[in-house]
Amino acid sequence: MLITLEFRDFKMTVINLPECDEILLDNNDGVLTITLNRPHKRNAMNITLVEELMAVFDAVVNDFTIRAIVLRGAAGNFCAGADISGMNRGGSEEQAAKATWEFNRLFGRMITKANNASQVVITLLEGAVLGGGFGLACISDIAIADKNAKFALPETGLGIIPAQIAPFVVARIGLTQARRLALIAERIDGEAAKELGIVHYTTFTSEQQQQQLEKVLQGVRRCAPEANAVTKALMLKVGRIEHETLLDQAADAFCESVRSKEGQEGTKAFLEKRLPVWAHKL
Amino acid sequence: MLITLEFRDFKMTVINLPECDEILLDNNDGVLTITLNRPHKRNAMNITLVEELMAVFDAVVNDFTIRAIVLRGAAGNFCAGADISGMNRGGSEEQAAKATWEFNRLFGRMITKANNASQVVITLLEGAVLGGGFGLACISDIAIADKNAKFALPETGLGIIPAQIAPFVVARIGLTQARRLALIAERIDGEAAKELGIVHYTTFTSEQQQQQLEKVLQGVRRCAPEANAVTKALMLKVGRIEHETLLDQAADAFCESVRSKEGQEGTKAFLEKRLPVWAHKL
Amino acid sequence: MLITLEFRDFKMTVINLPECDEILLDNNDGVLTITLNRPHKRNAMNITLVEELMAVFDAVVNDFTIRAIVLRGAAGNFCAGADISGMNRGGSEEQAAKATWEFNRLFGRMITKANNASQVVITLLEGAVLGGGFGLACISDIAIADKNAKFALPETGLGIIPAQIAPFVVARIGLTQARRLALIAERIDGEAAKELGIVHYTTFTSEQQQQQLEKVLQGVRRCAPEANAVTKALMLKVGRIEHETLLDQAADAFCESVRSKEGQEGTKAFLEKRLPVWAHKL
Repeated sequence: MLITLEFRDFKMTVINLPECDEILLDNNDGVLTITLNRPHKRNAMNITLVEELMAVFDAVVNDFTIRAIVLRGAAGNFCAGADISGMNRGGSEEQAAKATWEFNRLFGRMITKANNASQVVITLLEGAVLGGGFGLACISDIAIADKNAKFALPETGLGIIPAQIAPFVVARIGLTQARRLALIAERIDGEAAKELGIVHYTTFTSEQQQQQLEKVLQGVRRCAPEANAVTKALMLKVGRIEHETLLDQAADAFCESVRSKEGQEGTKAFLEKRLPVWAHKL
Repeated sequence: MLITLEFRDFKMTVINLPECDEILLDNNDGVLTITLNRPHKRNAMNITLVEELMAVFDAVVNDFTIRAIVLRGAAGNFCAGADISGMNRGGSEEQAAKATWEFNRLFGRMITKANNASQVVITLLEGAVLGGGFGLACISDIAIADKNAKFALPETGLGIIPAQIAPFVVARIGLTQARRLALIAERIDGEAAKELGIVHYTTFTSEQQQQQLEKVLQGVRRCAPEANAVTKALMLKVGRIEHETLLDQAADAFCESVRSKEGQEGTKAFLEKRLPVWAHKL
Repeated sequence: MLITLEFRDFKMTVINLPECDEILLDNNDGVLTITLNRPHKRNAMNITLVEELMAVFDAVVNDFTIRAIVLRGAAGNFCAGADISGMNRGGSEEQAAKATWEFNRLFGRMITKANNASQVVITLLEGAVLGGGFGLACISDIAIADKNAKFALPETGLGIIPAQIAPFVVARIGLTQARRLALIAERIDGEAAKELGIVHYTTFTSEQQQQQLEKVLQGVRRCAPEANAVTKALMLKVGRIEHETLLDQAADAFCESVRSKEGQEGTKAFLEKRLPVWAHKL
């Protein structure tokens, strides 16, 4: 650990993660595991859970002592979507409508924040991966799915719409497959999810899933954390700003990375035929 | 049928579908089947056919008594593209050029309209799926292809270009595969079309195709028609308007859907553990 | 050859290809083969090589005596990326930073130019396809890979970023797979590259690769060169200009193509049931 501390400008204080009721947090060896913990609802998300997720993502922005964020669900399900059961109680019709709007929009803000996380976000998908849970899967940098996981966008079957989710599904798998999944609410398994490009790896057992996660984490550790964060931010800009402007910005970022501590250490390690400091397990 | 009529603000009048010469129309049980009917030309599209298609799509905008539009070709071929044989007759060179421009652009308008249809558009693809026929396949929400169907963009082999089609092909399968198919005019079969993401399902026989269609229609019926239309419109906006603005609009649409008749019925049916009214076969 | 010369407005002069040190050029039968020739560096690109590539692409703009450009590497590797070893020597820190920026940005200009080439660009991928080499693969119209080729974006493992490359990788395979490959620096083989849509064909031996190339070249020859160039330019505009405007421009281009020598010859050949002149091997 010391070698790393000497190397980068680490936050020396213990990270201030928020107190949470609906999610479990485990921060260990540079990996922050977030477990959605409402098993009685197959981890469907209520307002509290969404706000807690946002608070966690806020707390760790640019904190590179955390290299990866693993997102999973408790008790065999990833997430069954939004839990609107507690929402519409009391108040006028106008107040109810406002509350509905706010909850829906909040979810979009959370998922946007998760999409832009500085760290590598890894989802472990099993059981129900529905609606908003499907949306969360779509913003992970790496998704590992159980072959028997059930993916679906069931919203229109309930007369409502996958509102905040749709843009992330289209970004993930393109219009062609997004249309199909949304308009006939087809339920697909992990293997089909891999074929459609929703997930990157599939596994049969939780032991295999853990092994695949460990392999991915090895890859994460090989890559410099700040360089990873910059690369991810760059990729997320593609198509949103003009091509030549993006390439100019990319050259700026490249120069900074070459001259950064990471860039200096990376080149030196390469010439000295040793692992760079960030590749050591924290 | 009555329960449905009580539920939604159905158009009580019989739908006014236009009289057509080059296509056949069959409106049955909520499914409008359009058959391109120029078998002597492998259903290549002339101006009349394109105008008739547009008139039909115009006639059914937001008509949710129609849940799905099935697009197919007569006599074993889907569509061999544009039929320009009848176009350049008579007139000055300037008039001919104008007519060419108008016919080409008209096709783009038709395909844009079909892409934005309020209903779920399903294509049944067999035999020739060429040029403009390939373009039509690319705007369907669900595409079911015979494994031996022949897909190609043969335009540049004739010294012309897949002008109005190219944008829809790129939207369907991305630049990488679009470049390949257009620049070497490669002919691929249904199975390869599924691998490239042009179609969703492949079948061997017309009996299997009919079974797959029936399964898809079951899915369509499970999903609320207005919610489906709104979801589709939302997905088609992705990448065309700014991200946060889109999510704001999506929250508006979500609120409307929750408070709509469909949203109310959907929630009620879910709690009462019964199918919502729209799920009954019309 | 004569029939072709009579047909199009060929440049009758011998093409003025630049003198090159780091690449080999072979212009034969309408196919320009460019071989990256720094085998001691696994063909990693220095400034000279990048400038030579740009000069070649500049020299052949709209030269349709060249139908295809084949890009490959010497001695069993395609390209191991950028060679920055010769870059940072001497000068002030400010000069060094400026040189770094310029070299990085130059690579983006080169790859943009290659992406927009008037001819069909074909890459033959084997051995190392890393970093900038991966980027070059991503702009080819047709990519043929050896099953054992090694594709990776190793930059962040060195503490730097795939700056000019990232936008082309995202355009090629989408955000989902681009994130994965960049953030864990996963090394994949030719077969996986085909699954992800980086390449179109895979082969086992160099003999098979040659056969596949010959098949692709047959396809290229079937397609009219100017029509191909216009189609490619059109496809590259998708998503960059407004939909209806693009379709208007496409109709303009369609009219021109119909009235061009190619369009006239193509229609005539079709009616006369013979190959158009451009389909003859040069």
